[in-house]
Amino acid sequence: MALQLYDLTDASRTIFFSPYCWRIRMALQHKGLEFESIPWHFTDTDQIARTGAGRVPVLVDGDRWVHESFDIASYLDAQYPDRPALMKDDAAVAAAQFMDAWCNFNVFASLRPLAVFDVFKIIHDKDKTYFRESREKMLKSKLEDISTDAVAEVKALAAALRPADAVLAKQTFFGGREPSYADYVLFGTLMWPYQVRQSSPLEAGTHVEAWFNRLLDLNGGFARAARRVSDT
Amino acid sequence: MALQLYDLTDASRTIFFSPYCWRIRMALQHKGLEFESIPWHFTDTDQIARTGAGRVPVLVDGDRWVHESFDIASYLDAQYPDRPALMKDDAAVAAAQFMDAWCNFNVFASLRPLAVFDVFKIIHDKDKTYFRESREKMLKSKLEDISTDAVAEVKALAAALRPADAVLAKQTFFGGREPSYADYVLFGTLMWPYQVRQSSPLEAGTHVEAWFNRLLDLNGGFARAARRVSDT
Repeated sequence: MALQLYDLTDASRTIFFSPYCWRIRMALQHKGLEFESIPWHFTDTDQIARTGAGRVPVLVDGDRWVHESFDIASYLDAQYPDRPALMKDDAAVAAAQFMDAWCNFNVFASLRPLAVFDVFKIIHDKDKTYFRESREKMLKSKLEDISTDAVAEVKALAAALRPADAVLAKQTFFGGREPSYADYVLFGTLMWPYQVRQSSPLEAGTHVEAWFNRLLDLNGGFARAARRVSDT
Repeated sequence: MALQLYDLTDASRTIFFSPYCWRIRMALQHKGLEFESIPWHFTDTDQIARTGAGRVPVLVDGDRWVHESFDIASYLDAQYPDRPALMKDDAAVAAAQFMDAWCNFNVFASLRPLAVFDVFKIIHDKDKTYFRESREKMLKSKLEDISTDAVAEVKALAAALRPADAVLAKQTFFGGREPSYADYVLFGTLMWPYQVRQSSPLEAGTHVEAWFNRLLDLNGGFARAARRVSDT
């Protein structure tokens, strides 16, 4: 039986925009594992109650339920060692953990203005109260006030991404010649605004943009083929 | 003949505090290569004129002169492949480049208040005019005004180091079970304030502090034995 991925989606159940689900979508592609995407709304917590976590991604592999994106990636490497490794050794695990932490502490703040209100617009009506209340509490701002100047926000994101840009000036991927889970951590993070906005959140001409395009093209353009707001 | 390292020093020629020289000091230890440290002052540019760069570290290996810390580390791996690798594969190179860029863009700004004026106090008189003029121009501040509240500055550094702390909560080193050049990049960076201040710049009880102590202990306590201001 194919793996199943509980996968955050919009009201139309066609746009997938979770930065954490995208990490696992790409991880599953990397390992050549087929999976069924189960469209999941923020308030569908009953469906994944047995994880005890209340959020996605959740991977179901037979009778095993695995949650938390990093734990899922580690599970996939441990469970499917004959497939291409996401993190080939302990140094690669540390590098992916550093990318994960860097996204959390140095990147997400610059992404929120470029994503949060656009996410609100496309999610299912049943999710809207939960989403507004939780995000407005976290961000101490009305959703409508989070983004004020998209041009400046794209510039601020490019500034936050400078360490990544410096690496990608010299490297094809964070994994070196081949992508590793560190690549999917940042790529998934950036898919969040990319999937919900009309225009790319990435500054044109940057090394990050070129790398992002390489990842959109991987595996026959798997990520590029995902439906975007601008294509609806 | 032993390798020679042009190595930034103070007026007494006993304190070594360059974040970039420390990366190479640790790299040479890692590879088990003996080296002669040649104490070098900021204005001793004639001594290293043939590099065309005007700054250290500069490594002299027979008739080869290599400068720029990352290039020196790469040179050591290429030239001494039978010694333990600083960066064992292209992914390790990318991880070290990312650490380098992260230090440049996300860490150094928080270190300057904790180091710059203390460096000024200990350098050779002949260096003081150069140092004051170049740093005051870069930082747009009088040296005497760069540090205003050491307690707050240590807290700000700890905040900047949070991505590293999150990794080191789970990993012994950024290289995984063994240190790699990524470790020495951050360690060298932090040796800058550590060498010139009376007290540690690291917040007590953090994972970064514990990792820093592990690196001070490496190779028989090589870094720990380096003379510090507080020991004079």
